[in-house]
Amino acid sequence: MNLSIDFFLRILALSFFHPSFALIFLPFFYSQGYYLTTPEFLWASLYASFVCFFWLLGYLSLKSRNGWRTTKVNWDNEVVVVTGGSGGIGGLLAETLAIRNVTVIILDVKPPEIEHVNVEYFKCDVSNYEEVQRIGKDIMEQFGNPTILINNAAIVRGKTILDGSISDITDTINVNLLSSFWTTKVFLPDMIKNNHGHIVTVASSLGYSGLPQLADYCASKAALISFHESLRYELDTRYDAKQVRTTLVCPGEVDTGLFDGVKVSFPFITPRLAPLDVIKPIITALDKDEGHIIITPYYVYLMPLLRFLPTFVQDFAHKFFGANDGMKTWRGKKSISKKDQ
Amino acid sequence: MNLSIDFFLRILALSFFHPSFALIFLPFFYSQGYYLTTPEFLWASLYASFVCFFWLLGYLSLKSRNGWRTTKVNWDNEVVVVTGGSGGIGGLLAETLAIRNVTVIILDVKPPEIEHVNVEYFKCDVSNYEEVQRIGKDIMEQFGNPTILINNAAIVRGKTILDGSISDITDTINVNLLSSFWTTKVFLPDMIKNNHGHIVTVASSLGYSGLPQLADYCASKAALISFHESLRYELDTRYDAKQVRTTLVCPGEVDTGLFDGVKVSFPFITPRLAPLDVIKPIITALDKDEGHIIITPYYVYLMPLLRFLPTFVQDFAHKFFGANDGMKTWRGKKSISKKDQ
Repeated sequence: MNLSIDFFLRILALSFFHPSFALIFLPFFYSQGYYLTTPEFLWASLYASFVCFFWLLGYLSLKSRNGWRTTKVNWDNEVVVVTGGSGGIGGLLAETLAIRNVTVIILDVKPPEIEHVNVEYFKCDVSNYEEVQRIGKDIMEQFGNPTILINNAAIVRGKTILDGSISDITDTINVNLLSSFWTTKVFLPDMIKNNHGHIVTVASSLGYSGLPQLADYCASKAALISFHESLRYELDTRYDAKQVRTTLVCPGEVDTGLFDGVKVSFPFITPRLAPLDVIKPIITALDKDEGHIIITPYYVYLMPLLRFLPTFVQDFAHKFFGANDGMKTWRGKKSISKKDQ
Repeated sequence: MNLSIDFFLRILALSFFHPSFALIFLPFFYSQGYYLTTPEFLWASLYASFVCFFWLLGYLSLKSRNGWRTTKVNWDNEVVVVTGGSGGIGGLLAETLAIRNVTVIILDVKPPEIEHVNVEYFKCDVSNYEEVQRIGKDIMEQFGNPTILINNAAIVRGKTILDGSISDITDTINVNLLSSFWTTKVFLPDMIKNNHGHIVTVASSLGYSGLPQLADYCASKAALISFHESLRYELDTRYDAKQVRTTLVCPGEVDTGLFDGVKVSFPFITPRLAPLDVIKPIITALDKDEGHIIITPYYVYLMPLLRFLPTFVQDFAHKFFGANDGMKTWRGKKSISKKDQ
């Protein structure tokens, strides 16, 4: 990621808005002779309380999401399945895990760009349930039950509702959305049985807002956000399997080629992410064996708020940031398509 | 709808929070001898400004959504297509329009419950593009180009991700989501050509949150909300067809049989709607030829906010209102399914 507002916000989050920083003012002021009733000390207390309150909310949110109980993952026992793991985010994720000596199984329609002794590749169209089921069986026989499932496969067709062909639209929905149902159906039962596992749903910032030329893509990603929520509530309330974690990833545009050519008006505010910016928090979630909600860069936090604002504000924001015209210059990676095999 | 919080909120919206009511205090106070600088008059002004500000925001939001230009619809020239119009909301909508002397064409897998000289029925599985295309052609030849399209068809399977069969899941996505793509592809081009038309997307409150036993249903409805947004932005920025209106409907549970048996903890706060509560605002939107966002009952406005709250608050809200267990007692209407034909 180039220099952007996120750089400064991240520094602020680690300094001015971090409890350890906010709390340090109190003894400092006190030692400088500002007693407990002085306005300076009271303001510093207010600021520290404010920062600590929100930090605590975040902490408790994370802990409650994970049944108040987390243990570091033991990577030796984990088997990772990554859909669409031959390139893009999935590819880098597979590579990063493989280097850390984890068995990574890639399901993709095209072979992976990397080779590594820890990486196994199965040619699989994840939008086809029978194929996922058959290959899933092979995987379980050869490597044991996968404990980490990363539903990452996605394609972009970049056409308007009228221009998109029937297969453009169904492929997008099948690969981006239904594949998550299929892989979950195949790999979740054993996770529930052992009350151990982690399902990562790679959605997108575009799940929070529909855009021109992306009706099918945005729809599939909005549906994935919903899928993640349903899955978590089913695990909690129907299977009592809180130790099966669920992580949702909603990144803005990532520099993987999928959205090559897309232009935004203010890359300083809505920057393009480097793949590593998305990989790192996913690995952290897996490492800590904690279900996370990964939203990055910061502007994505504001996207779902747009729906609460008057239409002219929504439309202005879309226009101002170039959201409606971004896809006009799109020349995205077609090679992710199963049709190009 | 039985007596619920919505009854009181609706009264408040038409009284205490309505500009005409809020403004009347000012001359009243003034005539009572409270002059412009008295605290009573200042408080009344503040309250009136507050009410007027939000009312104005709503008004401008609506107007901007419709290109600042609306004309009442001339029903004599309109041809309405309702998918899933043989029962439920679609059925009542068809009936209401037919009585008002509008030509209504029902696309459904089963014949309509009502008969009326203005109602035409075409047996059509709207999840199948070829069928929609073929029947669409027939319709255009017989009745001219439909100008109002109500994408309403929906099915519920009510199973967990693991329990649902492959066809349960694909049927739900195909009928609830993809059918809107297909009907739009078939009927939108003529609307754009004439820069006149109205596409109503019947989504659901469940598009704002995933729930157990409803992963596929919630996903399809979340995707529909996104579809509506993409469609609107495409019409505005790609086809310059602002007079083709788009309306989104996100009702809570409606008493149509689809969700029979579902229990909620506090029906006073999250009431079940009568079908008429949903029909009326749709007819108003069509009548005024204005694209609306129809969210009802009031609690649905709060649902998308949940995602901004800490996990333990989200989970508490789900538990408190009985959202996670509601489907356990579901014995919903199966007859809407195309499998039952």
